[in-house]
Amino acid sequence: MKKIINDPAAFVDEFVDGILLAHPDLLKVPGDDRRILVRADAPVAGKVGIVTGGGSGHLPLFKGYVGAGLCSGVAIGNVFSSPSSQQVFEATQAVHGGAGVLYLYGNYGGDVFNFDLAADLAELEDIETRTVLGRDDVASQPKERKTDRRGVAGIFFAYKAAGAAAERGDSLEQVAAVAEDVVEHTATMGIGLSPTILPTTQQPSFDLPDGEMEIGIGIHGEPGIHRGPLETADAIADRLVPALVADLGLADGDRVAVLVNGMGATPLEELYVLYRRVHQILAAQGVTIARRYVGEYATSLEMAGASISLLALDDARLALLDAPARSPFFQEG
Amino acid sequence: MKKIINDPAAFVDEFVDGILLAHPDLLKVPGDDRRILVRADAPVAGKVGIVTGGGSGHLPLFKGYVGAGLCSGVAIGNVFSSPSSQQVFEATQAVHGGAGVLYLYGNYGGDVFNFDLAADLAELEDIETRTVLGRDDVASQPKERKTDRRGVAGIFFAYKAAGAAAERGDSLEQVAAVAEDVVEHTATMGIGLSPTILPTTQQPSFDLPDGEMEIGIGIHGEPGIHRGPLETADAIADRLVPALVADLGLADGDRVAVLVNGMGATPLEELYVLYRRVHQILAAQGVTIARRYVGEYATSLEMAGASISLLALDDARLALLDAPARSPFFQEG
Repeated sequence: MKKIINDPAAFVDEFVDGILLAHPDLLKVPGDDRRILVRADAPVAGKVGIVTGGGSGHLPLFKGYVGAGLCSGVAIGNVFSSPSSQQVFEATQAVHGGAGVLYLYGNYGGDVFNFDLAADLAELEDIETRTVLGRDDVASQPKERKTDRRGVAGIFFAYKAAGAAAERGDSLEQVAAVAEDVVEHTATMGIGLSPTILPTTQQPSFDLPDGEMEIGIGIHGEPGIHRGPLETADAIADRLVPALVADLGLADGDRVAVLVNGMGATPLEELYVLYRRVHQILAAQGVTIARRYVGEYATSLEMAGASISLLALDDARLALLDAPARSPFFQEG
Repeated sequence: MKKIINDPAAFVDEFVDGILLAHPDLLKVPGDDRRILVRADAPVAGKVGIVTGGGSGHLPLFKGYVGAGLCSGVAIGNVFSSPSSQQVFEATQAVHGGAGVLYLYGNYGGDVFNFDLAADLAELEDIETRTVLGRDDVASQPKERKTDRRGVAGIFFAYKAAGAAAERGDSLEQVAAVAEDVVEHTATMGIGLSPTILPTTQQPSFDLPDGEMEIGIGIHGEPGIHRGPLETADAIADRLVPALVADLGLADGDRVAVLVNGMGATPLEELYVLYRRVHQILAAQGVTIARRYVGEYATSLEMAGASISLLALDDARLALLDAPARSPFFQEG
């Protein structure tokens, strides 16, 4: 195990401590439990709060997107494990500025269970909540079951847009509608080349023979739709991008935002080799890339691999992407 | 080889193409050779140009630091290989706005040879140049031979400060003095846990038995000062930080900027575990961390490992760190 860690059982608490020590101007722990982080100025009176959360091991997801123009707070689980309902509820209380709270997180059973329980607790305290699930992984379910899809890197777009809507003073209904609209127009597919090693068990998160790739892999190593010998970057993009274009129904003249996301161990250079091909494929179809993001936005510890996300754009979505935002891991404007 | 690439011989050209396709608003190729990138508004009349460069495989180093408030241009070599003198010279011509050009790059033989030749070519064209070498790797040479040290991640601080000085209109002498001052007050040490695989040869960049670490490793896998069984994150920081503190002569009451840099495959979570300990060690000595940067700033493709850099701060250096800057990979203010 080639990890720079101390006691594996302390891994999450220690990296959260590091984040807090590094960014006291941007983040704070509202109570006694450091597994709950909120933006330093939370709660913001009169504005909708946005709470996200999920398992650890995906930095900058989820804690990285807490800040002005993004999420308001996060509940932090153990590696690849949901936070507790109590933690989600405490985050909810800490960010509620009187205008209600949106729950925006990836569609995984444990998370759904705990966020739903937290919503019940919030209701008892007269805090109104809405829930929008990231479900952008097109390989996880066919289009006719798209509401069952898992959430992966494309949730970044929903954070950015919903965060901007909350910041400008939209109501809870409006912020939820913005998030839902962006989720509806986002599609992601990933490829895995090597597993991550879980810190506590020291076991690989999945098995993949050397020299093979898994197309459509999930962010925790969930099985994809094709396994075979590793192909070239162009061949990989040629598998992923048309599937996304078809899923979103993109046509000549459409505009998109592109996210080429590294899973952890894959160098930035390789992400740009992929981006080059994404650009070529979309240009050939008359689809314009209006905004692009290339880097590590949602990882799986040291997994080698990448994902490509497309967000179909209209003027409203584009304006929300361009709104100012500031967190320890993301800055716009 | 678990790489998302096409023809290994085309790797550099293809990722540079990807960068250009992604960031046409920030970067341009001034001539026919795409191995030379300059900021989109180069040359900036009346201001000092800054040219950097070196081998590929270190993104965001070097191309990532070309932009307003940073470097003006970059000459891009093959993986771990110097660019040619002609490429450096063309970058020099493209960024020369009438106020001369600073060469700011890491202290490696091939790079020094080619930048020096380019300086001769520039002189023939009446373009004045100065050279400042990044030489922050304290493990590469003892303090009494510090001018022979290699340059590693700490050059980020020199880019940031010299770029800010050029942007505010400092003369070539002044910009060079700023860069030299920052280099003089920067110290870095790294740890490697696994080698990178070179795309063309498919060979590891160095040998390191499984379960071992190399303290003081260079950015291309150059030997360090200690090899042994992998230790905990805290034990690693306890080896690195005191060496940096001693090298810089830091004392109670001093202020520093800290860069905890990932070499490629090491997750951001682990960098924050390291940062936590860096903070503890410095706090115990009365040294204040005034600014901190945690992430991938200078990599070695998919090498697992990290480095810690300290910059001793005074008010002038701090102001230069805080000045606005904008490149595809770095934004301040």
